[in-house]
Amino acid sequence: MNPLAPLHPLSRHADATLTEQLSGRFAERIRQRLLAPGSRLPSVRECARRHGVSAYTVVAAYDQLLAQGLVEARKQRGFFVREQQPREAARDAARTPASAAPPVNAAAPIAFPRAPLSAIALMRSMFQPPGTRPMPGLGTLPSEWLDLPMLSTALRRVSSGALLGPLALQYGEPAGDLRLRRALSQRLVDFGVKAAPEQIVTTFGATHALDIVTRSLTRAGDSVLVDEPGWSVEFARLAALGLRVLPVPRGEDGPDLAVMERLIEAQKPHERPRLYITVSVLHNPTGATLALGHAHRLLKLAQAHDLHIVEDDTYTHLAPPHLPRLAALDALERTIYISGFSKILVPNWRVGYLAAPPALVDRFIDTKLLGSLSTTSLTEQALAHCLEHGLLRRHAERVMARLDAARARSVQLAEAAGCRFAATPRGLFGWVDTGVDTERLSQVMLDDGWLLAPGSIFHATRRPGTLMRINFATTQDAQFWQALQRARDTPGMATPRNPGFASTAR
Amino acid sequence: MNPLAPLHPLSRHADATLTEQLSGRFAERIRQRLLAPGSRLPSVRECARRHGVSAYTVVAAYDQLLAQGLVEARKQRGFFVREQQPREAARDAARTPASAAPPVNAAAPIAFPRAPLSAIALMRSMFQPPGTRPMPGLGTLPSEWLDLPMLSTALRRVSSGALLGPLALQYGEPAGDLRLRRALSQRLVDFGVKAAPEQIVTTFGATHALDIVTRSLTRAGDSVLVDEPGWSVEFARLAALGLRVLPVPRGEDGPDLAVMERLIEAQKPHERPRLYITVSVLHNPTGATLALGHAHRLLKLAQAHDLHIVEDDTYTHLAPPHLPRLAALDALERTIYISGFSKILVPNWRVGYLAAPPALVDRFIDTKLLGSLSTTSLTEQALAHCLEHGLLRRHAERVMARLDAARARSVQLAEAAGCRFAATPRGLFGWVDTGVDTERLSQVMLDDGWLLAPGSIFHATRRPGTLMRINFATTQDAQFWQALQRARDTPGMATPRNPGFASTAR
Repeated sequence: MNPLAPLHPLSRHADATLTEQLSGRFAERIRQRLLAPGSRLPSVRECARRHGVSAYTVVAAYDQLLAQGLVEARKQRGFFVREQQPREAARDAARTPASAAPPVNAAAPIAFPRAPLSAIALMRSMFQPPGTRPMPGLGTLPSEWLDLPMLSTALRRVSSGALLGPLALQYGEPAGDLRLRRALSQRLVDFGVKAAPEQIVTTFGATHALDIVTRSLTRAGDSVLVDEPGWSVEFARLAALGLRVLPVPRGEDGPDLAVMERLIEAQKPHERPRLYITVSVLHNPTGATLALGHAHRLLKLAQAHDLHIVEDDTYTHLAPPHLPRLAALDALERTIYISGFSKILVPNWRVGYLAAPPALVDRFIDTKLLGSLSTTSLTEQALAHCLEHGLLRRHAERVMARLDAARARSVQLAEAAGCRFAATPRGLFGWVDTGVDTERLSQVMLDDGWLLAPGSIFHATRRPGTLMRINFATTQDAQFWQALQRARDTPGMATPRNPGFASTAR
Repeated sequence: MNPLAPLHPLSRHADATLTEQLSGRFAERIRQRLLAPGSRLPSVRECARRHGVSAYTVVAAYDQLLAQGLVEARKQRGFFVREQQPREAARDAARTPASAAPPVNAAAPIAFPRAPLSAIALMRSMFQPPGTRPMPGLGTLPSEWLDLPMLSTALRRVSSGALLGPLALQYGEPAGDLRLRRALSQRLVDFGVKAAPEQIVTTFGATHALDIVTRSLTRAGDSVLVDEPGWSVEFARLAALGLRVLPVPRGEDGPDLAVMERLIEAQKPHERPRLYITVSVLHNPTGATLALGHAHRLLKLAQAHDLHIVEDDTYTHLAPPHLPRLAALDALERTIYISGFSKILVPNWRVGYLAAPPALVDRFIDTKLLGSLSTTSLTEQALAHCLEHGLLRRHAERVMARLDAARARSVQLAEAAGCRFAATPRGLFGWVDTGVDTERLSQVMLDDGWLLAPGSIFHATRRPGTLMRINFATTQDAQFWQALQRARDTPGMATPRNPGFASTAR
């Protein structure tokens, strides 16, 4: 069962009883982590109303979930998704002696920090087959916005017999295809970033570049500074490496530098962070861009505390080139620049890169070699072709024009639906204040087949809030906004205090 | 300068003096880690003789290396490569207060364990451009053994417009391309391994699969059992993840189970290993294959100590299908099976996979998502095409026949050159006893442009020995064996005691 497909109403003529259908639907969402551990199921009355069944059916369905160990009942408060799946819990209990210290690992499950679970679900949902509704919570452009003929041509050009051989039959260069690194070196000049091809290492997408940099510059137990709100799948990746995530509030101009300094100084000397990971241009989820003066002060602070900065410029192709990059300001001295092509060209080809201070390049290449050997010249050369011939630039300009129009319409629809923007709408993402708890809103909208990105998944520790991230390209449908408005008016939709961006930044 | 290209003799007519040429050559090898930290430079007399220069020139060159901080002089013993590069050492010294505990990390360099350094150099050398001599130390088939037309056809078939779109413009399936997973599920039946497509996760090569499994099932500080001798780049990968590597002597029939059990029981209860990584078929470097009875006892031991086994079947296409796989014996209950296509088809496409117990699959997919999002359907579908049409099977049969002939010739040449085989010659690799210290032998052979794989790089802690690994496909040249024979007869070539396989296994 695809938990993201628009839900059919429960059917009285199906093979399964209504109770089974309802409990199956919740079980699937829990399994897919669209209902995160610790979150509350709807009240019996609300659930009965929403699905058009009797209270008796709901109680029976919840009892089934209870019997399966998926949820637990808390007195006077209702049903909550259990923190651990029953099989894992049983295995842990069997393994850990009663007297033992922290539960041991290896074959035992690695717990991701709680908050990002639903972020992983969101990420998994990017992989759903197409043909269903546009997903307002997704982080990518719809595939029909991309340029298939350009890719076909580029691929044909580089996969002709003469070129395919040397490309495919050896491992290739450890740093990645030289032709692509040369084209990237040229491209970076547009942003004022001077990186020789020797300073560039290609990767399987920007995420892989982040992974290589983090693994090279940190060890388990280290702390790492990140922006909050921020992409919490990134927080989960850091946590899975055994790193402590130190969130810095992100305002419209950039990170709160006073908080950052206090955070650094609050750590024991040998536990101070040495790495700050940030999206400086078109930040996810707020769309904000680092202000020039703020960037300068950030670099001074980084110097004073011997921090390396990882500048994740994933959304670079959706931004005007004049926006200042940290890597341009500090001439790649303590900044490592990361970007890729997933957001503008070909998500599935997985081509990204990093540009690094010369002294760090070899270390990054070693980590790349140890973790995955080399990258694929075939796709790298195809992208080099697109860069060399200005095809990517022209495509990006078309996408930006289309996105501008979409954004204008989305903003209008959102405001008409009673939402307001917590940050100036820019780029691909809108950071929207709905006025109601967006975690609960997400569950209600999911019943209608709309996947949202509630604000809580952009925080290191889960906090309820009224914010959510929307994708301007996939929120063009007036039906979506009508459904949202209906859902907001659901009785009992609470209005918690807002954490993060909205309250700290403005 | 490519330190692996056949060396030109030092030239009296070059721009640089003989001293500069000589010191430059050593500096490059140290930088490329073909001369590992702690290894001794040749004696002045030997070096002078080998390069046809005066002792004065050698002393001057060594002094330059000393001044650059690359080597250190030890009284009465000669010159040794320094443990740390000067820049890093200086940075560490500046950062670590005199009173401090272990040096802190983040921006500080992560030290790989000492032994594998030269293994990384060997791996980097796989990436050298072609056209130079065949490299007896390499781990891959020569590219002319591979089947270019088959690949071109497969790529053309899957990259036609109709297919390219859905492939490229979405992220694809988290577990990897379904068509490839189905084809692999079919292929695994040949080995008696029953894995549904849902149990298979595709990766960027077998190394990436190993990385995903290790990251999912261990945390920094855990211990992991490995075979020794074994592929020490793998040891380096584990060490870089903060894991403790526990080497188990590998004999011709498999790992020494008594030692394995003692090793497990010697750890504190919460530090016991939960993972054993092994190449059961055509083990690298010995070419040995796990005996059936031994496999059974290994699985019982794994059960008793709640170990997961990672079966790295990288050389699967070079082995007869009837050889027993652990994953077949235990029906993927506690074995995770890993393989790929780099050794038989297309190193640079980086397509590998894992087949896992159903309960672990989701965890592996999450780790894949966190570290690199998805893999590339384009290459995965091209490989599926090769599998579906039996093209890969026929190609592998041709390669095996060719390898059989090459092996016969190599064995003859090796024995004629005074070497003997420490393990029965099988598959791609020979485990050869040269009778002299193969680390020193490697340096002498490198001067002639031949890259060897000395036995020391297959050990977790560096130990001198007389063994080396040869690649049967790249040791067909009688000139190589003549050069080896000459090098063995170099005066002062010591004969240390052999560690590992030869002494423990037979």
